[in-house]
Amino acid sequence: MKKSVTELIYEAKQASYSMASSDTETKNSVLQCAAELISQKADYILKANRLDLEAAKDEGLGKTAIDRLKLTDERLKSMQNGLLSVKNQPDPVGSTVEGWVLPNGLKVSRIRVPLGTVGIIYENRPNVTSDAAALCLKSGNAVVLRGSKSAINSNTIIAELLNQALSENGLPEAAVTLIDRTDHESVREMVSASGLLDCVIPRGGQELLKTITANAKVPIIVDGDGNCHIFVDESADFNMAKDIVINAKVQRPGVCNAMETLIVHENIADRFIPEICDALSGLGVEILGDKITCSLFSKCTLATEEDYATEFLDLKLSVKCVRNLDEAISHIRRFSSGHSEAIITSDLNSAERFVNEVDAAAVLVNTSTRFVDGGEFGLGAEIGISTQKLHARGPMGLRDLTSIKYVVHGNGQIRK
Amino acid sequence: MKKSVTELIYEAKQASYSMASSDTETKNSVLQCAAELISQKADYILKANRLDLEAAKDEGLGKTAIDRLKLTDERLKSMQNGLLSVKNQPDPVGSTVEGWVLPNGLKVSRIRVPLGTVGIIYENRPNVTSDAAALCLKSGNAVVLRGSKSAINSNTIIAELLNQALSENGLPEAAVTLIDRTDHESVREMVSASGLLDCVIPRGGQELLKTITANAKVPIIVDGDGNCHIFVDESADFNMAKDIVINAKVQRPGVCNAMETLIVHENIADRFIPEICDALSGLGVEILGDKITCSLFSKCTLATEEDYATEFLDLKLSVKCVRNLDEAISHIRRFSSGHSEAIITSDLNSAERFVNEVDAAAVLVNTSTRFVDGGEFGLGAEIGISTQKLHARGPMGLRDLTSIKYVVHGNGQIRK
Repeated sequence: MKKSVTELIYEAKQASYSMASSDTETKNSVLQCAAELISQKADYILKANRLDLEAAKDEGLGKTAIDRLKLTDERLKSMQNGLLSVKNQPDPVGSTVEGWVLPNGLKVSRIRVPLGTVGIIYENRPNVTSDAAALCLKSGNAVVLRGSKSAINSNTIIAELLNQALSENGLPEAAVTLIDRTDHESVREMVSASGLLDCVIPRGGQELLKTITANAKVPIIVDGDGNCHIFVDESADFNMAKDIVINAKVQRPGVCNAMETLIVHENIADRFIPEICDALSGLGVEILGDKITCSLFSKCTLATEEDYATEFLDLKLSVKCVRNLDEAISHIRRFSSGHSEAIITSDLNSAERFVNEVDAAAVLVNTSTRFVDGGEFGLGAEIGISTQKLHARGPMGLRDLTSIKYVVHGNGQIRK
Repeated sequence: MKKSVTELIYEAKQASYSMASSDTETKNSVLQCAAELISQKADYILKANRLDLEAAKDEGLGKTAIDRLKLTDERLKSMQNGLLSVKNQPDPVGSTVEGWVLPNGLKVSRIRVPLGTVGIIYENRPNVTSDAAALCLKSGNAVVLRGSKSAINSNTIIAELLNQALSENGLPEAAVTLIDRTDHESVREMVSASGLLDCVIPRGGQELLKTITANAKVPIIVDGDGNCHIFVDESADFNMAKDIVINAKVQRPGVCNAMETLIVHENIADRFIPEICDALSGLGVEILGDKITCSLFSKCTLATEEDYATEFLDLKLSVKCVRNLDEAISHIRRFSSGHSEAIITSDLNSAERFVNEVDAAAVLVNTSTRFVDGGEFGLGAEIGISTQKLHARGPMGLRDLTSIKYVVHGNGQIRK
């Protein structure tokens, strides 16, 4: 009989104890072995992937979804590189974060420990199976993976290779557990597994996130929207502002750290807006602006409140003019999703106020929001970008998959 | 018309921006002023408290609940001391946790910032109103308080004095918002306030916690049960073990860091169990043990699985004999609530294995579980003891009421 989702998670939890006490050398060896297996078994993976692709076409999946689903030799290579890059990162587990001695002689220290059992719920991309597993294993966790129906054949074989790599290194296979069901009920069972799963990280669209936050009984880390703004202050260097705005909108519009709204100081609107809108429009960007913007740029459509609230993830930009920094900050407070917010300015006071008063995972001065990324920040691979404030905020690396344990050493002290 | 819970929380969120950019001197002045107001208005507070006490008696509240509700001159003094002690603690906000420069010249730093708007849901004790508010304000947050029906008059006047202290220092009164409703619906509205409340910390019994985890759409920090164990290893110093076990059970049995189960190595059971059970029994402790324990101590009742799973919070102890460390660890894994777990041993290997393999907020070697407390650990006042692994684990102080913000300074860098 098929095991229930809860039974599978229970087995992963049992495996998490072995992972937690596994040394860095063994964990690295698992990652090395998994990378080699992916290379050796490339044909099997691609064959499984073809089954998924055929089914996806039969079910009429969209072009973008099919592209995300598709594995190629190049993508397999990049999965291997992902495993090896995580292998090369320092192991966060076991390090002493801080320590002190109490007046009564007790030695207190705070030690970094794995979270335990981490759930990842994701859509389409089969590479997440190995990317997420690598990060969880290296940080000493067991991982429970729940991928999409569309990728089930690809995910199954990748998970099997990870199981083999664990087993060859004397670790329990259940440390990587792929849920063999892809119905909604399996998601609900996962996020209700209090006491078994230490956290769940959803990686997917808004619909998935909504279902999960509505049903979650276990702690979740939200990798949320990026409704990112750039405010071009009156003192901004125009060339710098132009380069950054174009970079943040056009270089890769479909990602969460791309700019969605440009805010411009009214004192420079008549010079800056025609120039930047013309340049953006020439690069295929559709402009939705307020009245001032529309009066300065003819191809502008009047923006609605809804537009300012939307993460377009596309060659589309809303533009807003403001009288001063305060208005810029309050527009951001109203519409920001708390991801990445930037100011372009030459004024020290404006820069400082923006940094202090804008509440986001990342605030940037005179640079592009596109840099807000674990790889760019030098954290190595990232498991996501947290837009919540608890536990982790911004790009999350290995360290964010750990917790802290107080360790107290005494020699007979009792409390008076 | 009365404001809705959501409107009240919205006002607190607006006030949180002023709190976040308020300097340490101003925040300290608010706490000083609140302490003085509590002293000046002692009569008013005690009068309001008498109304609550009378209503509580009419409603037939239990003795313990009434004791928790009751304010006295001494308890007001301790509320004032609480405010002043938080005032004297270092302000965590604004400090740079770490910083580095990227190859392209971008300066990245991680800065400690307030969480924003923190919700506290608590029962009975009116002192929580000022204790929790003090910690939240000092860490730059706005706080939304939802106390119990029984304490509404006491809480209202204490909150008003805090509002006055804020206002006298030029800060918005809504930075301390007491929800003026005490029905279940108000709890549900609070924990559903996504985007307004950055986290909710429930302080209360299991029933409250269950309602909250079942309904929460905002992140919560669980201050959970303490089903704490002490394992007396075969190599333990008997006198040390005896002192620690008695301390952990008897010194204050009603709190979460008191011991609930004693685990004894079988090789020393026949010598240790009669001695320790006799001593504990003489101090009024009821013993529930396994077969071996009952064969060695006549006043022992046979313990059920249910007993091992119970946090007695009383002069009651379950005892379990095990053949070795592995059995002790697996008993703890099965029944522990992940709060505080201790081993008494002279064996280095046992101590290390226990520390590494037991998964709890605090693991202790040769000392009493009773030390697991923010005050004892030197963290200053505590907002609770987290038994979850995300964000905060173990005793939580000011720092745990903050988050991190990435700040990036550039001079025109764009992403290639």
